[in-house]
Amino acid sequence: MSFDRLIDKIIEYGNPTVAGLDPKLAYIPDSIKKRAFEKEGAGQEGAAEAVFQYNKGLIDALCGIVPAVKPQAAYYEMLGWAGVRALFRTVRYAQEKGMFVICDVKRSDIGSTMEAYAAAYLGTVEIEGKIFEPFGCDAITVNPYLGSDGIEPLLPWCKKKDKGIFVLAKTSNDSAGELQDKIMETLPVYEYIGRMCERWGSGETGRYGYSAVGAVVGATYPRQLSSLRKSLPHTFFLVPGYGAQGAGAADVAGAFDGNGVGAVINSSRGLMLAYKKAGRPPEEYASAAQKEALRMKQELTNCIG
Amino acid sequence: MSFDRLIDKIIEYGNPTVAGLDPKLAYIPDSIKKRAFEKEGAGQEGAAEAVFQYNKGLIDALCGIVPAVKPQAAYYEMLGWAGVRALFRTVRYAQEKGMFVICDVKRSDIGSTMEAYAAAYLGTVEIEGKIFEPFGCDAITVNPYLGSDGIEPLLPWCKKKDKGIFVLAKTSNDSAGELQDKIMETLPVYEYIGRMCERWGSGETGRYGYSAVGAVVGATYPRQLSSLRKSLPHTFFLVPGYGAQGAGAADVAGAFDGNGVGAVINSSRGLMLAYKKAGRPPEEYASAAQKEALRMKQELTNCIG
Repeated sequence: MSFDRLIDKIIEYGNPTVAGLDPKLAYIPDSIKKRAFEKEGAGQEGAAEAVFQYNKGLIDALCGIVPAVKPQAAYYEMLGWAGVRALFRTVRYAQEKGMFVICDVKRSDIGSTMEAYAAAYLGTVEIEGKIFEPFGCDAITVNPYLGSDGIEPLLPWCKKKDKGIFVLAKTSNDSAGELQDKIMETLPVYEYIGRMCERWGSGETGRYGYSAVGAVVGATYPRQLSSLRKSLPHTFFLVPGYGAQGAGAADVAGAFDGNGVGAVINSSRGLMLAYKKAGRPPEEYASAAQKEALRMKQELTNCIG
Repeated sequence: MSFDRLIDKIIEYGNPTVAGLDPKLAYIPDSIKKRAFEKEGAGQEGAAEAVFQYNKGLIDALCGIVPAVKPQAAYYEMLGWAGVRALFRTVRYAQEKGMFVICDVKRSDIGSTMEAYAAAYLGTVEIEGKIFEPFGCDAITVNPYLGSDGIEPLLPWCKKKDKGIFVLAKTSNDSAGELQDKIMETLPVYEYIGRMCERWGSGETGRYGYSAVGAVVGATYPRQLSSLRKSLPHTFFLVPGYGAQGAGAADVAGAFDGNGVGAVINSSRGLMLAYKKAGRPPEEYASAAQKEALRMKQELTNCIG
């Protein structure tokens, strides 16, 4: 039970990056939308088709360079069930291209319900004696507010199918500290949750020393990120906040351990909107994202040293 | 900006109950599954059709008696995009039958992403100049771990379209206290979150004194429930934990204010599995749920009394 599958890929590619797939309609080139609307109508199904084709372009440009993608469920759910179908198609397509898929769903619920989420996103469901993988992601993000009941139902799937989870510890947003920085008994909430991650993942770690229970720790709070890296030696980090949210390479350096592993750094808008920064037309979004991914890879490699 | 629309219905029906729609396949009568599999195949689409038909039976039996339903998203997502389509159809069907629909999605994310969730579940999305309502629920549940960034994007939709949200304060599960009961500065976390609900909802309340920002407070912790009712005078409660999770009518009495309003009590398995308790066959699930709903209504009325 570990994140070895992801870490192996990061080492193979020499790149600790995960590409966020947050496909707002406004980001998608008109040519893709036009074809999709012609095929599926100018409604939610057409928009969902455009989202999938857009993602396909990004995945084709990034596979072999970036080891993982992170679709953000909200941008699919906002197109209703058709959008959720585009999410499913995106997960499968990225996996076909050899990518590790972290579904950013931030789910959390009571135990019996969490079993349903676990089956949905990491496991399988049996219908009339046949086995289905509803989403079949490689990892998901989860919210710790409900305590162990919201985490433990995921662990048997992590074990059985070599999957992982990232528990929100210190998120990247401005108001993260309203709850997460508060001192609870003797520790800040985020540190307390981090220690729970160590406990939830305890007992089994992989070749790099990390369990299958990771944590989300934002690059926008570099001091806390470095401190958590030291206090949570078996907890692999998913680090949002690099790029559009304001953090740079120096801010993420502390996420890595002495061996240069321990974290994967997310960039969503930084990659998706790279064409804008490069002064190129939207139609060149994929090649611009590829260039930005190579630049980011170099920058991260330099900062890990 | 208030929960007046729901409270009006509760008063009209004399029943502060919300029926949880958590349709596990195992709960669905064979006759419904058989027809659905014949129509849509014995896979996820067939199972999703069975879920919708099952819900339709429950809604038909409960409308006019129970003012609201609460579909739990996990049980739909576990059937993939087809399940999410069944969720959409369920929301619409319940609204056609005059019910208030609380979608139990427990979403939470950073501000820009939360805007997408807000549009998905409470608001609208514009595609090529046309307006779509992806889910169009009347209210959703949300998780407070990310602070105000995860709440505020919902409020303009609450205002514009007369919707509501329920923020998790004290959940009904066993491990709820691992985080929620800890003392943070001077207050337990759940109380702190409750006070944030008062702040997020401040400025606008309806005819019953409640804002559009409610809280989830489990009946399984009756002492905390009563205490929060007193300290949060403008926060309407969604109360899970009654029935299958172990709480009874006496445990929920403290959720109501001096006027007998202030909360809606959820029963999911208690209604869905009423046929078992009554010793009836699964085919009678809907009529058994109706009888149980009438019994529950009486029990709650007596305890508010």
